[in-house]
Parts: sequence; structure tokens; C-alpha cells
Amino acid sequence: MRIKRLLPLVFLLMQGCATPGLRGTGDLGVVVERATGKVQVVETTGRSVLGEVAGLGDLSHATVVFSRDERYAYVFGRDGGLTKVDVLSRRIVKRVVQSGNSIGGAISTDGKLVAAANYMPGGVKFFNSDTLEQVAEIPAIGKDGKGSKVVGLVDAPGDRFVFTLYDAGEIWLADMKDPTHPVVSKFTGIGKEPYDALITPNSRYYVAGLFGENGLALLDLWHPEKGVKRILGDYGKGEQRLPVYKMPHLEGWGFYDHYAFVPGVGHHEVVVIDTNTWTQAAAIPVAGQPVFVVGQPGSHRIWVNFAFPDNGAVQVIDAATRQVIKTLQPGLGVLFLEFTPRGENVWVSARDSGKLVVYDTADFKKLTELPSDKPSGIFFTPRAHKIGW
Amino acid sequence: MRIKRLLPLVFLLMQGCATPGLRGTGDLGVVVERATGKVQVVETTGRSVLGEVAGLGDLSHATVVFSRDERYAYVFGRDGGLTKVDVLSRRIVKRVVQSGNSIGGAISTDGKLVAAANYMPGGVKFFNSDTLEQVAEIPAIGKDGKGSKVVGLVDAPGDRFVFTLYDAGEIWLADMKDPTHPVVSKFTGIGKEPYDALITPNSRYYVAGLFGENGLALLDLWHPEKGVKRILGDYGKGEQRLPVYKMPHLEGWGFYDHYAFVPGVGHHEVVVIDTNTWTQAAAIPVAGQPVFVVGQPGSHRIWVNFAFPDNGAVQVIDAATRQVIKTLQPGLGVLFLEFTPRGENVWVSARDSGKLVVYDTADFKKLTELPSDKPSGIFFTPRAHKIGW
Repeated sequence: MRIKRLLPLVFLLMQGCATPGLRGTGDLGVVVERATGKVQVVETTGRSVLGEVAGLGDLSHATVVFSRDERYAYVFGRDGGLTKVDVLSRRIVKRVVQSGNSIGGAISTDGKLVAAANYMPGGVKFFNSDTLEQVAEIPAIGKDGKGSKVVGLVDAPGDRFVFTLYDAGEIWLADMKDPTHPVVSKFTGIGKEPYDALITPNSRYYVAGLFGENGLALLDLWHPEKGVKRILGDYGKGEQRLPVYKMPHLEGWGFYDHYAFVPGVGHHEVVVIDTNTWTQAAAIPVAGQPVFVVGQPGSHRIWVNFAFPDNGAVQVIDAATRQVIKTLQPGLGVLFLEFTPRGENVWVSARDSGKLVVYDTADFKKLTELPSDKPSGIFFTPRAHKIGW
Repeated sequence: MRIKRLLPLVFLLMQGCATPGLRGTGDLGVVVERATGKVQVVETTGRSVLGEVAGLGDLSHATVVFSRDERYAYVFGRDGGLTKVDVLSRRIVKRVVQSGNSIGGAISTDGKLVAAANYMPGGVKFFNSDTLEQVAEIPAIGKDGKGSKVVGLVDAPGDRFVFTLYDAGEIWLADMKDPTHPVVSKFTGIGKEPYDALITPNSRYYVAGLFGENGLALLDLWHPEKGVKRILGDYGKGEQRLPVYKMPHLEGWGFYDHYAFVPGVGHHEVVVIDTNTWTQAAAIPVAGQPVFVVGQPGSHRIWVNFAFPDNGAVQVIDAATRQVIKTLQPGLGVLFLEFTPRGENVWVSARDSGKLVVYDTADFKKLTELPSDKPSGIFFTPRAHKIGW
């Protein structure tokens, strides 16, 4: 064999080497392209799209968590698909269809377990994060003896997971330190139809929104023995029932002093909660029904997007003065906001305009626009290091 | 040329490819081996040492910050050396000796500027994070017209940096959005000899410890127009002056509700501060003079190490009950504690025992020991995503 015949091989080896090359993973992210079952891999330093990964199934309402080394994205699809994507090589490592209908996922503190919350059949399944082999399952049979949809699944410190039983009206706290022997604490009668939940930034409180009645359900994870407390009895009061897909998300409340800023259900307002008393302190008028109300890292600014028909706007509130200080129009159908971890930029997905828009949070200047096919969720790798995300 | 002659080349290319291979950077860290001018590169998933990088100069009291992609560690040596280390390939990318004597560094929110605080000559120098070329300098000439040592340097949101002038007793807030035109706000007469500082976890307050008198100096970064406030007038009161190298560090206070837990200067106690009033609420007796008092992420546990002669112990306080719940003996000369970002493990450096000790924070079980040559600071890459670290 002559050198000429070997050259293509050498070239191939070098190319295998070079693309994609050695690089850090701290400034990467994935963007869900919901209509086509793809994710874009993006980077936030040069603000560009690195590539796409296809074949992820039905990605409407998809969520993503990351491995603790920030290399792998676990994508939970609405169709029950769970796909492990290598964001470095931009390929699918493994894909399983784990249920008929899923609504979210989480990863354990030690990174070993990936959990998926299921609508149909209900319950939570746990998978080895390396292989995606199922290692445990917690069926969601409520006190009423019936199976329940599971929603509001988040990880909690100490390899625990918290979730709500939508139909049964319960919060369950599962200790998965030993996955072969889950230890489940059940809190029953916590309210009707808990539909979404969050963990506060100090990882202490689990707060579930109630679709079937007013108020919120609060569990102190540092003192679970105190049980679940009902807070904000007036929250959502007097509203007509809205379809679930229009309910606001509870993730990512903004905070200032001991005040939390949350979406007002069915109102054109952001509600200010005094977290010392867990009562409503004020309401801030905004441009529409808030969907996400999220605090900018390191700042007292709160960013808000809205439900249809006001979903072309994004508003920024100064939490100190409780005033709207800026209204942006990134595009049509704004579904999601994601901050870079230290808050200098925010990425916005405008589904109906088919683009991502990146802003400088200091001066609201548009830094770039990137084409994206009906983008919804944007998830940056530093989420790997956060509890309850 | 025949294939035999080409094979070594092919092999070399493949090897260049393979070592070190493609991997995520979210679970990496560097450990300062102070006596030998080296850093170890470690990973926290399998808990192992991946390799060493030598030639970093005098690393006593060295600190480290990371690039926003988590690939590069910037190591600030006591000798004024600033070294950029690629933690993936484990080699030095660039090294400059930027001053005669340095005490710390920081990196801007956008990741473009690396800043070094200097003792000799005083002032802060700013470097392009890619090339380490100097792009700006702020000489530290106090109101008294004299040059001052600079300490307590941290980054703040919006490409700002905060630092103290030790000799002049001032706090400076530098806006480096345009590095060619630094905008510096100066707060004078803030107290005698500010020797160290921190930013609180919500990135709001800059708190400087005073070596020359009692109390602490507090700057609200969200409202700098309100000026610097003196708090905790009794903090350190009645103490003999101690050598600076025995002063406690202020980084990483623990928090519970609105209480902060900080080292008691010269006392065998951890001081509890009510952050609503910024007054002392309690004091918790501990095994020695605290050096670091750090909150475990996602938890109400506070970990403490101690000055000589009690520097073989580490104590854990339950912030809810304000009781010491555990005393560990990791080894001799415990200098530093670093938590994995979600708090499931803590890494401890025991300088005089020549080892790193890793604990499970849930049950205090020792998970592993790793040999290390007089280790001091331990810095994990997720620091890249934090403000004021």
C-alpha cells in the first residue's frame, strides 16, 4: 500500500480528532425545536449554534436535565421518550421510550439516577444515568387507592426527589439513596390538583401550585416533619378554571429581600409574596398573563413573559421599586427565557418568529438573533450544578 | 514512502486524539500544591486525580478562578504570577509575572477580563482572558495620596469589580464594561485596614472585614448610592491584634433564614448575625478559632475548620439548632473545604498529612483519600458560574 492510498485514512483520523474538538462544556446549552423532534446545541460565549441533533420524538413541553460533568443532556419528551444526548459530539448516546406520556424529569444529587414523571401510566421511573436502564419505579397510588398522574417532579438534596400526585392531591418525598429500597414520605390532602411546583433558590421550600382550588402548598424540606402548609389562600381566587396548558409555570421566582415575585393566575399581574408570612404583599400590573417570572442572577431585576395573545412581549421589573422598567418585543410566540449563569445575557425563544434572541441584560441591547425551528425551552449546562432545576 | 514509515505518524495522530480525550468539564477541579508550585487536576465523579501541572511559581495563599466555559483555570500566585492552565489538556497555556506580590484575583461577568489585586505595587491589573495581555490598570492611590495594598477583590454583576484599599481604608467599585475607560466609585473612610471581603450569595452585599478596628464594612451593590455602612460594631472587640495570616477568611458564610454564620475573630466561636439588623444574635462554641465557616449547598449545615493548634478538626453545625452535630478529624493541617456544587460531597485538604479527604455530607462517611503534596486550596470548575467567587 502506498501513501496515496493511506492519506484518506489519515485525513479521516485527523478529522475525527478535530470535529468536534476538545472544548469546555460550561458554556453550552440545548434548545428544543418542538415541531421537528430536534435539539440545537448552542454556545453562549460566541453566541452561536454549534449543530443539531435529530430523532428525539415529540418534544412539545419537553424538559432537559444535565449530567454532573455537563456533557450529557437528558431530554424528556411528551411521548414518554427519554433521550441521552452527548452535547460534545452532538449525537444520541441512548434513547428509550419509558412511558406513554411524560411531563418532566430530574437528576439525583450524585448524578447517578435520572427520574421521569409520568402521566400515563402515572408514577415515577428511575434510570441509571449511564445506561438508561430502569433501576426503580414508584407507582403513584394515592390514599384513594387510585393511580395518579405525577407532576412537579424535582430533585432535592441528598438523592431525594419530590413530586405531586395530580389526581390524588398529594406530595411525595422519595429518598433514593439506595435505589433498590426507595423510602417514600407521603403528604396527603395537600390540596386539589397540584399541577406544577418549584424549589426555592436556597433549596429549602417545595411549593406546589393548585389547579383545583386557590392557594399554594408548601413543604419545608429542611423540616419535612412539620408537614405541608397551605399558603396564600387568596392566590388564584375568583378565577375561572383555565386549561392547564395556559397555567403559569412556577419555576424560577424572583426574590428581593424576603419578597418573592410570582405569576398572578389569570390576572395581568405579578404577585409579590412576603415569604416571612407567606401572604400577598402587592401586585404589579403587567402586559398580560405571566407565564414565567424569573429573577436575573445577581440582580434585582425580574423578567416576565406572557400567555397568548400578549406573548410577543417580555417585561422587566425592578424588584426594589416594583415598577416595570422595560418592555421588549423579541418576536412572536415568546415561550422561554434562559439567563447565562452569571446573568449578563438572556436568551429568549420566539417560536412563531423561528428565532432565538439574545440580550445584554445591562442595557437591554439585542446582541444577536439565531435561526431556530419553532424553539421552546432553552437549557444551559450550568443547570447541572443546581438543585431542584 | 511506505506504510511502515507512516505508521508512527498515524499512531501519533491517534494518540493526540485520545489523550486526554473528549470529556465534560463540569466535574473537574484544581488543587493547589503550595510547596512545589504545582496544581493537581481532579475530577469529582469518580473522585480521582487526573494529573498534575507544574511550573506555577510560589503558590502559598494562591487562588483560582475559571473561564466561563470551565476549561481554563487562572491561578494567582503569591509571587505575582498569573498562570492560565488548560484543565482538559493539563498544560500551561500562558504565564505572566504581573507584579511583585499578589493576593487574589477575579474574572469579569462576561469572562473577558481577568483581574489581579496586588500588594506590591498596589493596585489592580486587568488582563485579556484569552492572551493574558494587560488591558487596563487601576492604581490604588487613596484619599491620603499614598499607594495602597489591594485586597478583597471580587467580581460583581455587570462586569464590575469591588476591592478594598488596605492602607487607605477605602472600598472601590470599578465598572469595567469598557476596559479602556474604567469608571471607579470610591468609598472612603470605611474603616481601618480592610483585610478581606465577600459577596453574599444573592450577589447583593459586599462585606469587608477590618483588621485595624472592630466591626465590618457593608456595601449594598444594588444601592451603592447609599454608601458604606458600618455593621456589627462589637465584632472582634477586645481582641489583641493577630497576625494577618491567622485572620479568618470571610468567603462562604453559611445562612439560615435571615441569619448569617461567620468566624468569630480570636474566639473559639462561630458568630450568628441577624442580617435584618446586622447585629450579633448569638455565638456558637466550637473547637478552635474558625478559619472558614461555609454553608453546605442545599442544606442548613455549616462546616468549620480552624487555625493552629486546632487545625486537625472540622466541625459541622446544624444552623437550625445552632449545635455542633459532628466533629471530624480528616488529618493534620486542614486548610480548605470545597463542596461539590450540589453539596453531596465535601473535599478537605490536610496539608501536613499530604492528602485530600472526601466525605459524603449525608452521613459523614469518608469516601476516599487521595495523595496530595501539601495541598491548600481546592477549586471546582462550577465556580465559573458564580458571582463574587
